[in-house]
Amino acid sequence: MELIFATGNKHKLAEAEFILGLSLPQLKLLPHEGPEPVENGVTFLENAAIKARAAFEATGQPSFADDSGICVEVMGGSPGIFSAIWAGGRDDAVNRQLLLDQLTDISSEHRTASFVCTIALVEASGETFFTGVWSGSVAMRVSGDGGFGYDPVFIPEGFEVTAAELEPEVKSSLSHRAMAMNQMASFLSKR
Amino acid sequence: MELIFATGNKHKLAEAEFILGLSLPQLKLLPHEGPEPVENGVTFLENAAIKARAAFEATGQPSFADDSGICVEVMGGSPGIFSAIWAGGRDDAVNRQLLLDQLTDISSEHRTASFVCTIALVEASGETFFTGVWSGSVAMRVSGDGGFGYDPVFIPEGFEVTAAELEPEVKSSLSHRAMAMNQMASFLSKR
Repeated sequence: MELIFATGNKHKLAEAEFILGLSLPQLKLLPHEGPEPVENGVTFLENAAIKARAAFEATGQPSFADDSGICVEVMGGSPGIFSAIWAGGRDDAVNRQLLLDQLTDISSEHRTASFVCTIALVEASGETFFTGVWSGSVAMRVSGDGGFGYDPVFIPEGFEVTAAELEPEVKSSLSHRAMAMNQMASFLSKR
Repeated sequence: MELIFATGNKHKLAEAEFILGLSLPQLKLLPHEGPEPVENGVTFLENAAIKARAAFEATGQPSFADDSGICVEVMGGSPGIFSAIWAGGRDDAVNRQLLLDQLTDISSEHRTASFVCTIALVEASGETFFTGVWSGSVAMRVSGDGGFGYDPVFIPEGFEVTAAELEPEVKSSLSHRAMAMNQMASFLSKR
C-alpha cells in the first residue's frame, strides 16, 4: 500500500515513517512536495485539507497532510495555525524564542498549552480527518535538542522535561502527531 | 480635582487629556512614571490594576492606568494583553508588521478584530474598572500616520480607512480608550 505524504518537512516524514511503520509495516510513504498551496484556512483541519487536496490533485494517489501547532491558553489558542510562521518566517528557533519573549511575564501556572495535529486524508472515495491533542505547558526557557518545532519549549503533562528531551520512542508514542497518525493507521488497517 | 495617570506613553497622555477634558474640564491629569511593575496578569483588567495600584501606592493619590490591545478573532483574541510586546520588544512599527506577516494568508473576511481598553481607577475608597471595545478588522497593509500602536493596521467598523487615517477628533470620540475614559468621566462627574 502506498500513500502520498504532502510535506517538505523531513522531520515530519521521519516521524510519520516511524509511527505508521509500527502498525502498518506494509505501508510505503511517498513524500510529495509540490508547489506550496496558500494555507488560507482558519483551522488546522482546513489547512491540512488544502495541502492534502493539492497533493491528491497533483498525483492522483491517496494523499495525506498534517497541520499542527502549539495552542497557548493565555493567548486564546495562538500561535495555533500560525505556529510555523509565528515570527514572520519559518525559522523554528526564532519562532519559539518569540513565544518565550511574549510570555516572559507569565508565571508557570498560566502557561498551559497543547500541541494539536490534524491529518487530512484525501482519496478518490472521500476525505477523512484525524486529530490528536497533547496537553502540557510552555517552558520558561528552551531546553533539549531532540525533536523540532516547539518541542524544546513544550513540557508535556506528566513530565518535567521538554518534548525535545524525551527519547524519540517516547515522544513518538505520546505526541499529538502520533495520536493522529495512529488514528489514521487504525482507519487504514480495517480495510 | 487631580488624578494620577500611570503611564509613560505620551500618546496615551495626550489622548486622555483630550477625552477627559471634554467632560471634566476641571480635572488635572498628573502623569506618573514610576518603576515599571511586572505585568504578570492574564487579562487587561489585571494588568491595568497592577499599574494603577503601583501608582497609588507610590503617590498616595487617586490613580488610574489603562491596559489595552488588539484582539484578533482568528488568533483567539491575541495579541490581546501581549500587544505591546508582540514582536518581543516595544516597537510599535515592528509589532504591527509582525501581525500583518502572521496574517498574510488570511483573507479580509476572516480578519475581524477589536481594540479593547480597560481602565483601573484605584482610590483609597476602592477600585473601579471601565472597559471599552472598538470593533473592526485588521487591514491588509499599514496605512496612515496618525494615532499610535496598532492604529495604522486597524479598520474600524463602518470605515474603509484605518484608525491612523481618522481625524484625531473622530478617533477620540469612537475609540476603545475614549469609551473607557468616558465611562470613568461619567463615574467621576457624579460625585
